[in-house]
Amino acid sequence: MGELVRFGVSMEADLLRQFDQMIARRSYANRSEALRDLVRAAIVEDQWQHGSSRTVGVVCLVYDHEMGDVGHKLTHIQHESHVQVVSSMHVHLDHHNCLEAIVLRGKPSEIRHTCDQLICLRGVKLGKLVMSHTGRGL
Amino acid sequence: MGELVRFGVSMEADLLRQFDQMIARRSYANRSEALRDLVRAAIVEDQWQHGSSRTVGVVCLVYDHEMGDVGHKLTHIQHESHVQVVSSMHVHLDHHNCLEAIVLRGKPSEIRHTCDQLICLRGVKLGKLVMSHTGRGL
Amino acid sequence: MGELVRFGVSMEADLLRQFDQMIARRSYANRSEALRDLVRAAIVEDQWQHGSSRTVGVVCLVYDHEMGDVGHKLTHIQHESHVQVVSSMHVHLDHHNCLEAIVLRGKPSEIRHTCDQLICLRGVKLGKLVMSHTGRGL
Amino acid sequence: MGELVRFGVSMEADLLRQFDQMIARRSYANRSEALRDLVRAAIVEDQWQHGSSRTVGVVCLVYDHEMGDVGHKLTHIQHESHVQVVSSMHVHLDHHNCLEAIVLRGKPSEIRHTCDQLICLRGVKLGKLVMSHTGRGL
Repeated sequence: MGELVRFGVSMEADLLRQFDQMIARRSYANRSEALRDLVRAAIVEDQWQHGSSRTVGVVCLVYDHEMGDVGHKLTHIQHESHVQVVSSMHVHLDHHNCLEAIVLRGKPSEIRHTCDQLICLRGVKLGKLVMSHTGRGL
Repeated sequence: MGELVRFGVSMEADLLRQFDQMIARRSYANRSEALRDLVRAAIVEDQWQHGSSRTVGVVCLVYDHEMGDVGHKLTHIQHESHVQVVSSMHVHLDHHNCLEAIVLRGKPSEIRHTCDQLICLRGVKLGKLVMSHTGRGL
Repeated sequence: MGELVRFGVSMEADLLRQFDQMIARRSYANRSEALRDLVRAAIVEDQWQHGSSRTVGVVCLVYDHEMGDVGHKLTHIQHESHVQVVSSMHVHLDHHNCLEAIVLRGKPSEIRHTCDQLICLRGVKLGKLVMSHTGRGL
Repeated sequence: MGELVRFGVSMEADLLRQFDQMIARRSYANRSEALRDLVRAAIVEDQWQHGSSRTVGVVCLVYDHEMGDVGHKLTHIQHESHVQVVSSMHVHLDHHNCLEAIVLRGKPSEIRHTCDQLICLRGVKLGKLVMSHTGRGL
């Protein structure tokens, strides 16, 4: 964590009361932490919308490992991809179904492309991309 | 606008710098207005997720008015609905295609239900629900 | 509506059963209409993500018309914008609050930019962009 | 994979042409696989919106492990939670920043609640919930 800066914010009393209720329900320790979370989420969304610097994404797949050679194809795409595959976790959901979470580093457009390639495979039932961040400066 | 309250927020210098760059690019006058917008958006999202008090939604449809009696059916559903249809705007996109924005008041679940009924009609090509707000206390 | 093409789709019996239940609950007349809606929504999402051809967006604002000269500024931005403002609808939510739905034509990036300019104004409490479509070929 | 059923779908020629272009760009093998993916995504979205049966979610956190005892608190919440924590993966993004993907089983509302508790911790910079699925019947 870097140096902390303190500044003043003005807000309508009614709005602030509602915000305080919401963050208490979610167990936030204080307003600053809740506001920092909103700011961080907005910056990450902006980066994925407009930016081209390298970031981090997590692809979460649900697939049927007995469907053809889907496991082999998933591995092949990860090795051929221009993005860096940092790590992956495999969870056995039941006899047929697996969940795989794959952490990727690269430009937003590259991560999206690799994600598209993984999702379209036969045997992959569901694929979602989490637009995350390296954590630097956040 | 109600009474303004002023309070202090602490934030990492790096994070604040990125936030300042983003809100300058989007033409915000100052940090307070940008933070209020983030807080308001979070409260509205929370209300639509968890709340049951009456709110406002806007259904935006694109449809082909020459497809069967879609216009008649759209009107019928709006009159039969448990939600209050406040107003609607009709735009002629071209010879066949119309855009209609319909402002609804009701509970989130009721507005969603009416929206589903409108979208499923044959002739309606695209339907999206905007989860908005009455503006009170926001 | 253009010429209809008919083709075959294969789907797991379990998946089809769940789909049929969902579309019955939403009052779809048949599978084809429900599948066409999914396809249209996917095409529109893809167009807003990757495309640069002119399309249609609807900006839905909630604002306090007594806050400074927000009404004047909203009009000014619409007139200065590079996108075409097709139409707008104004709804009086209560004594202070207004909802305005503004239909814009332009490239996705231009519509997003105009939307950002409208949302950041002081007095505008909530702004959401509906990524819609011209309806052509959809 | 269960028994395959085959049925006919009718679609406007223009719409089908656009769909074919989109799925070719995303490397789908055929229309059926692409349509099944759209159907599965719609069913999962519907389940998270309306359903109360047990499902699977993945929480992806970015946090600074040197910030107080955030690691300890993350573990504590996972152990105390009413949802089942199936597995988690920890990735070292840099000297300070970690990414953690946590696979949870439970009802949608329970998974959301646990996710809220994890995200609000000081030290957790970013938290996103992936609404996934057990894979059964999908």
